[in-house]
Amino acid sequence: MKRKITLKQIARELDVSISTVSKALRNSAEISEDTKQKVQAFAKLYNYRPNNIALSLKNRKTNTIGIIIPEIVHHFFSKVIRGVELVANNRGYNVIIGLSNESFSKEVINMDMLANGSIDGFILSISKETLQLQDYHHFNETMSQGMPIVMFDRVVSDIKCDKVIVDDLNGAKNAVKKLIENKCKSIALITTKDYVSVGKLRTQGYLEALEEHKMTPKADLILKIDDTLDYKVDLEELESEIEQLFKSNKKIDGVFAVNELYALSAMKVARKLGLDIPNDVQVIGFTDGVLSKHSTPSLTTVSQHAQHMGEKAADLLIDKLENEINEDADEEYQTVIIATDLIERESTK
Amino acid sequence: MKRKITLKQIARELDVSISTVSKALRNSAEISEDTKQKVQAFAKLYNYRPNNIALSLKNRKTNTIGIIIPEIVHHFFSKVIRGVELVANNRGYNVIIGLSNESFSKEVINMDMLANGSIDGFILSISKETLQLQDYHHFNETMSQGMPIVMFDRVVSDIKCDKVIVDDLNGAKNAVKKLIENKCKSIALITTKDYVSVGKLRTQGYLEALEEHKMTPKADLILKIDDTLDYKVDLEELESEIEQLFKSNKKIDGVFAVNELYALSAMKVARKLGLDIPNDVQVIGFTDGVLSKHSTPSLTTVSQHAQHMGEKAADLLIDKLENEINEDADEEYQTVIIATDLIERESTK
Repeated sequence: MKRKITLKQIARELDVSISTVSKALRNSAEISEDTKQKVQAFAKLYNYRPNNIALSLKNRKTNTIGIIIPEIVHHFFSKVIRGVELVANNRGYNVIIGLSNESFSKEVINMDMLANGSIDGFILSISKETLQLQDYHHFNETMSQGMPIVMFDRVVSDIKCDKVIVDDLNGAKNAVKKLIENKCKSIALITTKDYVSVGKLRTQGYLEALEEHKMTPKADLILKIDDTLDYKVDLEELESEIEQLFKSNKKIDGVFAVNELYALSAMKVARKLGLDIPNDVQVIGFTDGVLSKHSTPSLTTVSQHAQHMGEKAADLLIDKLENEINEDADEEYQTVIIATDLIERESTK
Repeated sequence: MKRKITLKQIARELDVSISTVSKALRNSAEISEDTKQKVQAFAKLYNYRPNNIALSLKNRKTNTIGIIIPEIVHHFFSKVIRGVELVANNRGYNVIIGLSNESFSKEVINMDMLANGSIDGFILSISKETLQLQDYHHFNETMSQGMPIVMFDRVVSDIKCDKVIVDDLNGAKNAVKKLIENKCKSIALITTKDYVSVGKLRTQGYLEALEEHKMTPKADLILKIDDTLDYKVDLEELESEIEQLFKSNKKIDGVFAVNELYALSAMKVARKLGLDIPNDVQVIGFTDGVLSKHSTPSLTTVSQHAQHMGEKAADLLIDKLENEINEDADEEYQTVIIATDLIERESTK
């Protein structure tokens, strides 16, 4: 059985990055002629089948949408997929899903594989590693070859494509305002490091809410978690960071956390320190998770309407695929912003 | 842009079922010559690209595994996928996922699409509708064309392939034994209608546990839910059936439920009727869900080790793909049974 060689194997053999191989095979101007020739010759020798997206698109439609998500065990992403599925099925499209597992090279490999004639266009959310590396060549080149992309949730302003995002800034702002209205005087923020766009916007919402109420943000009330660590495995590490936050700020009476895990961990740590929720500390999370509703006490959250995001993303992509009139006109891209709702439960007064 | 015609469209045009179209295109002996000619001519006319699995397999490997699952918003299935991913990545394979949404025709369409040169083999769990229709031609024909399938969780004994299943019978039996040891005298079973194999085996485990303890099973303690209804949408219907069960059997002091949703609903209904858990009623569920741990009271469950199932399934499939020695020997198939664990929490004494 003759094996198909993969991008990864070519990269390993030639001792270059997967990104370089991918760019070289697409004849990118970023790569030197010498490297391009080497990669292309090697790929040919070992029977690598490069993408012929433009060609295949001209010839046929697959009526299939490719979704690339960073993680599968995640309620938010599965609800988005359900939304995409609903609209896709109604409009006569099938859906297949690839996982990046938050890895840049897996994202490149998956897109390469699916773009190879299996699908008509992508709906995707960028992996954390890609956001850190800021290497977006695979998105831009996929689109320049005629395959549309719609990004959701984790997006980058540099990339010109349709986008569906949550109103992270106002969602966060409204949550923090709620804590302020509920008489919280010392509100902590548990967020991620800034390279993930949603963490950044939610942090900004927190700061704007404080500002509007003439409260001065304090650096030691803001805990920035390095979420490249796998906290699902090492929850203790996360909890000890949060415990440190509470111990060095005895006056904390409100917590806004940018995701469900941080919020639930904050409640757990607070209770462990003998604090009552919501009487001593009020907590709000940002999520569409299933745990918020069932935790004790149940968690007040900012709902992102994940399914609606998926529906919207599918409509944008299929509209683009089926709109052949403006083929030669300048492309126009939309960013749809989905408003959030604050769902009040027991963790706030 | 020339559209690729789909199985569904051919079926609609010729007023036959998708299954008939699929069988006719694969030249199945089940279909009349007349129908085969009609379908094949139509497919040719409209440029349908049939599967050339056998051909494509001879020529190349894709190093990609296709997973078909019935549902995406389901913790069990996402954990299985994580397990498949882990092993696949370690062994140099990629993974793509298709969803059947519990529909027979979507299962056929997805398999057809992925088998068309995108993947080397399937890992799948059968949709409820397929189990009801008992139409397994798409599995058998995919395998007869040289593409291996590993089934997990929802399997059928008629189909000859590798399988990974949970020890549903003993898992259920041990759970019910636990209730008996905890002095429950009147143990209700909340299960599914019998066409889903796992529901059937868990029911059998319940009956065997009673029998071993010389307790007579009573028909009115067994509630069989029609789980083709979408109870995520219509929870009230489910709860009212369970309420009926409790009201017509005032002595119920133990409940074994075959999934998390039924178990949590039973706890909710019991509390509503003024019963204390675990003092008046003890409840055990069967699941790998996230809610069990966080519900109030937390739920005692039979853990299925979903991730381990996925890992095992991936190993079986890749072993088959890479084992070329026995190519002409009689195929041997394994059924791996994954043992369960009872995780005791607050819903039992």
